[in-house]
Amino acid sequence: MDKVERNKLYEEAKSWVVEAGELIRASLDKKLQIDTKSDANDLVTEMDRESEKFFVDKIKLNHPSHKIISEEGFGDDLSTLEGTVWILDPIDGTMNFVHQKRNFAISLAIYQDGVGEIGLIYSVMEDVLYHVKRGEGAFRNKTQLSPLKDHVAIEESILLVNSSLCCENKRLNHTKIQELVKTVRGTRSYGSGALEFAGVADGTLDAYISMRLSPWDFAAGAILIEEVGGVITQIDGSPLDFFGENTSFSGNPFLKDEIINNYIELK
Amino acid sequence: MDKVERNKLYEEAKSWVVEAGELIRASLDKKLQIDTKSDANDLVTEMDRESEKFFVDKIKLNHPSHKIISEEGFGDDLSTLEGTVWILDPIDGTMNFVHQKRNFAISLAIYQDGVGEIGLIYSVMEDVLYHVKRGEGAFRNKTQLSPLKDHVAIEESILLVNSSLCCENKRLNHTKIQELVKTVRGTRSYGSGALEFAGVADGTLDAYISMRLSPWDFAAGAILIEEVGGVITQIDGSPLDFFGENTSFSGNPFLKDEIINNYIELK
Repeated sequence: MDKVERNKLYEEAKSWVVEAGELIRASLDKKLQIDTKSDANDLVTEMDRESEKFFVDKIKLNHPSHKIISEEGFGDDLSTLEGTVWILDPIDGTMNFVHQKRNFAISLAIYQDGVGEIGLIYSVMEDVLYHVKRGEGAFRNKTQLSPLKDHVAIEESILLVNSSLCCENKRLNHTKIQELVKTVRGTRSYGSGALEFAGVADGTLDAYISMRLSPWDFAAGAILIEEVGGVITQIDGSPLDFFGENTSFSGNPFLKDEIINNYIELK
Repeated sequence: MDKVERNKLYEEAKSWVVEAGELIRASLDKKLQIDTKSDANDLVTEMDRESEKFFVDKIKLNHPSHKIISEEGFGDDLSTLEGTVWILDPIDGTMNFVHQKRNFAISLAIYQDGVGEIGLIYSVMEDVLYHVKRGEGAFRNKTQLSPLKDHVAIEESILLVNSSLCCENKRLNHTKIQELVKTVRGTRSYGSGALEFAGVADGTLDAYISMRLSPWDFAAGAILIEEVGGVITQIDGSPLDFFGENTSFSGNPFLKDEIINNYIELK
């Protein structure tokens, strides 16, 4: 993707994200109509779908050859990242959106033949936009993000982990996660994967482990994190899968092997 | 405390909180000098002490008969809440302050003969002030907080709990906490007790359980929470202790007995 074309797409994508954010803020005064999808934890609101429809219509109209991977079903059914692919989560952190009316984000990425070129994570209610064009720096609003620290000791790190991972589960040995929680300086959990990836990218959090992520959860975050020298993989170190459910480790590269080798034991 | 006197104190306290917030924001460009107190998790910065000194000087100058309970040692050594007592945490969420340069708060309360009259929690970097005068409503900036919901089912609640409480520890049965985590809809952990109490008060979070809190951590939050019909106690339901270390349960009263009776088992 040449730089002129990429800049044009970036400006377009950014303007749509900001416009969708305005629509979402306006909608919050209206009563939310809440459905449940697969279970009670997976809340879907009318606004999720409206926001996704807004983006899909814009993309299809302006770029009929581009493809879309998105959460609510208005996108394409892809099995390859060939060509230009937009990857969208119209509201990341839906539970926060419903319960808190804040702490949620729009996550939008553009990949060209499998390479992340543009990433946007917009924290709608605080009006903070994380944005990146690969190789041209990552930003939080107008402030460029620094490269991640040269070194961070695990005992001095802050880890993003939901407390559910410390509970017995089918996916991984929870007692090892408990050891990790006791080893790090502190843990946090915010309930929006996109904003959690953004926190790793801006260096306010050192690592993030998570289960059950879809490509729209991490597509923009991955570009941000890699731009500042961070890593993002599955929780066993293997590459992310854009066509299935993922586990994930992301963070400072100095923590990756230590955490994956010593504290992650998949069942 | 009569209303005229209370209004005067409220305006004064509010102006000092906002002024201290400005000083803290300005200081964040300076390199932080970090000590450690009792352990590496208990970071104390120069700014904690400067901010506390700022308040203590103002209070002592303007109200020589008032007493002060505060974190960093410039306050009084009290054994009673008789008279007018200011209870101050100059920077609540010090680890966030140091690592993130955001997500911390100033917490300031004024108690008259043991009754919480004025509470202020100022989220410094987002410039959000939670404020309450007992019986006159609680506010988030200019927006009055609604009374907490009439009813909330535990399965539909969001619980504030740090993942460390799901790990084996000396204080309480962690397997019961794991059951609780699996029962609620979701969990969060933000790393600032004051902001977590504020989240309970504004209804974005339904309950909060915590260990090892001091009076400056909860003094303002307690007034906010009680103003909107919430409850705050020790984790076994007994009253808070303003002269020692505390556990705490706070939240919607409909959740209190259910959580304390079914999921809290102190060792």
